[in-house]
Amino acid sequence: MNYRIVLYTLGLVLNCEAVCLLLPLICAIIYGEAPLINNFLICIGLCLFFGSALAFKVPKYKTMYSKEGFVSVALSWILISIFGSFPFILSGYIPNFFDALFETASGFTTTGASIIQDVEVLPKSLLFWRSFTHWIGGMGILVFLVALMPISGGNNLHLLKAESPGPTVSKFVPKVKSTAKILYGIYIFMTILEIIFLMIGKMSLYESFLTAFGTAGTGGFGFKNSGFADYSPYIQNVITIFMALFGINFTVYYLMLIKKFRPALSSRELRAYVGILIAAITIIFFNCRGLFTTAEETLRHAAFQVSSIMTTTGYSTTDFDKWPQLSKTVLLTIMFIGACAGSTGGGIKVSRILILLKSVVKEVKLVAHPKITHKITLDHRMVEHETVRSINVYMVSYIVIMAFSILIISIDEFDFSTNFSAVTATLNNIGPGFSLVGPARNYALFSTFSKFVLTMDMLIGRLEIFPILILFSPYTWKR
Amino acid sequence: MNYRIVLYTLGLVLNCEAVCLLLPLICAIIYGEAPLINNFLICIGLCLFFGSALAFKVPKYKTMYSKEGFVSVALSWILISIFGSFPFILSGYIPNFFDALFETASGFTTTGASIIQDVEVLPKSLLFWRSFTHWIGGMGILVFLVALMPISGGNNLHLLKAESPGPTVSKFVPKVKSTAKILYGIYIFMTILEIIFLMIGKMSLYESFLTAFGTAGTGGFGFKNSGFADYSPYIQNVITIFMALFGINFTVYYLMLIKKFRPALSSRELRAYVGILIAAITIIFFNCRGLFTTAEETLRHAAFQVSSIMTTTGYSTTDFDKWPQLSKTVLLTIMFIGACAGSTGGGIKVSRILILLKSVVKEVKLVAHPKITHKITLDHRMVEHETVRSINVYMVSYIVIMAFSILIISIDEFDFSTNFSAVTATLNNIGPGFSLVGPARNYALFSTFSKFVLTMDMLIGRLEIFPILILFSPYTWKR
Repeated sequence: MNYRIVLYTLGLVLNCEAVCLLLPLICAIIYGEAPLINNFLICIGLCLFFGSALAFKVPKYKTMYSKEGFVSVALSWILISIFGSFPFILSGYIPNFFDALFETASGFTTTGASIIQDVEVLPKSLLFWRSFTHWIGGMGILVFLVALMPISGGNNLHLLKAESPGPTVSKFVPKVKSTAKILYGIYIFMTILEIIFLMIGKMSLYESFLTAFGTAGTGGFGFKNSGFADYSPYIQNVITIFMALFGINFTVYYLMLIKKFRPALSSRELRAYVGILIAAITIIFFNCRGLFTTAEETLRHAAFQVSSIMTTTGYSTTDFDKWPQLSKTVLLTIMFIGACAGSTGGGIKVSRILILLKSVVKEVKLVAHPKITHKITLDHRMVEHETVRSINVYMVSYIVIMAFSILIISIDEFDFSTNFSAVTATLNNIGPGFSLVGPARNYALFSTFSKFVLTMDMLIGRLEIFPILILFSPYTWKR
Repeated sequence: MNYRIVLYTLGLVLNCEAVCLLLPLICAIIYGEAPLINNFLICIGLCLFFGSALAFKVPKYKTMYSKEGFVSVALSWILISIFGSFPFILSGYIPNFFDALFETASGFTTTGASIIQDVEVLPKSLLFWRSFTHWIGGMGILVFLVALMPISGGNNLHLLKAESPGPTVSKFVPKVKSTAKILYGIYIFMTILEIIFLMIGKMSLYESFLTAFGTAGTGGFGFKNSGFADYSPYIQNVITIFMALFGINFTVYYLMLIKKFRPALSSRELRAYVGILIAAITIIFFNCRGLFTTAEETLRHAAFQVSSIMTTTGYSTTDFDKWPQLSKTVLLTIMFIGACAGSTGGGIKVSRILILLKSVVKEVKLVAHPKITHKITLDHRMVEHETVRSINVYMVSYIVIMAFSILIISIDEFDFSTNFSAVTATLNNIGPGFSLVGPARNYALFSTFSKFVLTMDMLIGRLEIFPILILFSPYTWKR
C-alpha cells in the first residue's frame, strides 16, 4: 500500500472541500447571515488546515494501483462527510454529531434522506450548503479533483473507476483528465439550463439554484416542508424532465456533443430506461386515477414521482405513501432498478440489470444448445467475463448488506415496511421510503445506532459497495 | 427434443402417483370413510388411465439430455400437482380447481401454505393424502422413479440433477439408481424413527404418521387449527430435532453410514447450518424473554420456530407474527437462507450462500493481490466455474421472480409485509409468512389470480427455478 499517495489525495480532497465551502459563505454574506459567515469561515479554516497538512508533502512515487484507488475514494467520502457536517454542528442547527453526519452523508451521496423535522427554520446559507453537497456528490469529488487538480499520471483511472456509478467506466477520450473535464462541462451546462428554465417559471434565483443542485445530483433535499406540492405545474414538469435527463448515462450526451446521434440514441440502456419510466408512469396513472381530479393532474404527479424515484432523486409533489399498494410496489421496484450507469443517479443501474438478465438468457440457451459458445453482448460489444463476475459479486454483497442492515435496524422495533424501505431508500440513495419514513416524514425517529447504519448504507450505495468493502478488508492491509 | 422419452417419463410418474394414492385409500378403508374410498378409487383410475396411455409405448431412443431432463421434471411436477388435486375437488372439500391446485402444489413442493380455513373438518384419509404429498415431494418423485422403476440407462442423472435441491448433485455411488435407493433408504429409516419417537410421547399412530410426513419433507401442513401449540413439550422437542435433522445434507448421513465420520462432521455447510441455527435461537431467546413465563418455554418455542423456518417446514407452536420485530426479521432472514443442499428443505440453501460469500471474498482479495490466481473452494474441493455461474444466474432469476410476484400480487391491495412474506414463504417453500399470512392465518384471502402466481412460485422454488425457466423458454422448443 502506497500510504503517501492516499494521504496526499485525502489532503487535496479536503482543500477542494474548502473551496466548495466558499459558495455558502458568499451566500451567507449576500443574505447578511452574520453568525453563519463566522461558521463557514471556521469550517473552511479547518478543511484547509488538515488538507494542507496531509497534502504538504508531494509523494515521490505517484503510482496508484486499484487498491490505492479504492481506499482513497472510500476514505475521501468518509472524510468529506465528516468535515462537511461541521457547518451544521458549529452553527448549532444539528448539534448531535451522528445526526449531522447522517445529513451530510445523505447530501454527498445524493440520498436526500433528512433528520430535520422543520427544514424552513434553517438559515439560507446553510440550506444552500445542504443542497450544494448533492451537486458535488452527484458527479463526484474525485472526478472534480482529477479534472482540475494536479494529480498527475495515467493512474487517475483507478480513482474514476472507484467513484463512478455503473459496472464499467467509459473514457470518452484517452486522457482521464480530459474525460473528467468533459463530464463536469456537461454537468455544469445542464445545471445552468435547468436554473434558466426554473426562473422562466418565476422561481427565485436562490430556490432555482437549490432545486437544480438537488435535481442535477439526483439528491432530493427540499427546502420547503411540503416538498414541491405548492409549485406550479410548469415548475413541476420542468423538474420531472430534468430529473429524467440527469438519470441518463452521460456518454449519451457526449456522443450527441460530437454529433454521433445514432449510437447515442440506440443505446440499449437508454431505451430500457425510457421504457421502464413509461411503463411505471402508465401503471400508476391508471392505478391512481381516483385520487386526483383531472387526468392532467394524475399524469403530472405520476410522472414526477416515477422520475424522482427511478433516478433516485427523492423529490415529491404528493404523499405517495398514501397511494394504492400496486403503485407503491411499482415505486419500490424502480427504487431498486435505479438510473443509468454513468449518470448521477443511484440504484442498481439499468445496465447492470440488463447484463444480469442476459446472463440468465445465456444459461437457458446453454441447456438447449450445450455445444455452442454463448456470449453476453450489450450495444453490439461483448461484455467481458470480469465485468459479469464483478456485477454478480456486487449483487451478492448488495443483498447481504441489505439483509444485515434491515436486521440491525429492526432492533428499533419499527414495522417491516419502514425498515425495509428505509434501507432500500438509503442504500439506493433515494431518500424517502414508505410508512414511517414516507415522503411526508423523516428519519429523526431512528436511534443513533440505526442512523449510523443507514449513514454507512448511503456511502456503500453511492460508492457501489467495493471501495468500502476493500477499505475494511484485512487483505488490503496485509503485507 | 426427444418427445417420446418425455411423455414416457410423464406416464411413469402418473402411474407412480396412482401407487402413492393407495395409502390414503387404505386409510379411508381403515377409518370407514365410505365416500372417500370411492373418491380415491376414481383418482387412482384417472392416474392409471392417463399414465398407461402415456407410458404405453416404450421409446426406441432412450437418450435423455439435460434439456429433456429439465422439461420432464418441470412437466412431472405440474402434472402430479394437477392429478393430486383431484381427491380434494371430487370429494367436494375444495371444489375450486385453483384452490385445490394451490393446496396440492403446496403439498408436493413441501411448502405447507394452506387455503383451508378449518382443517379439522377434513376427513382423516384426505388429511393423510395432504400430508403424504409432503413426504413424496420432499425427496422427489423422480428420485423415487429412478430408484424403483425401469427408466434405464446412465442418463437418469439429468433427472436427479433437475429435481435435487442445491447447486450440485452428489452421487454417492457410480450408479444413479443405487444413489436414489440409498437416499430413499435413509429417508424411510429416519421417518420411521421419528414416528417411533412421537409414539413414545403418546401421540397416536395416525397423527405420528402425519407429523412425520410433514417433518421429513419439511412441508408443514398441520392437522390441528392450533398447529402444535397443544402438544407436550416432549413432542415439540422431538419435532424440533427431527426438523433440524431433515434439513441436513443427506450426504452427511451417507458418509456416517459408511463410517466416514470425520468428513461427515467437518462439512462446512453442516457447520454453517448449525451455527446459524444456534445464533438465530440465541437472538430470539433474548428478544422474546418477556413473552413466556419460563426460560425453558422461551427456549423451546424459539428453537421450534427457528428449526421450522430455517428448514422451511413451517410448523408452529406459537403465533410468531406477534413476536417483536427483531425476532421476526431474524425469522425472515433464515427463511431466505433455508436448509442445506441435498436435504428435503427449501430456501436458497446454505452451501449456495457459502459459495456466494466466497466469491465476494475472492473479488476483494483480487484487488489486493491482482497477480495471484484465486480459487473458490468448499470442503477442500475447488468449486467449478460452471457451478458459480449457475448459482449467480439462480440468484438473479430468484430476485427477478420474487420482485415480479410481489408486484403482481400487490394488485390485491394487501399491505407490503403480507405480500413480501407471502412470496418469500411460497418461493422458499416455507408456508406461513407474516401479517395476513401469519401462522395463525391462511392464504384463502388472495384472489384466484394471486393464488395461481403463488402456486407457480412454490413450483419454481421447489425445482430451483431452472426446470420451469427452461420449460417456458422458446430456445428449448426451437429446432
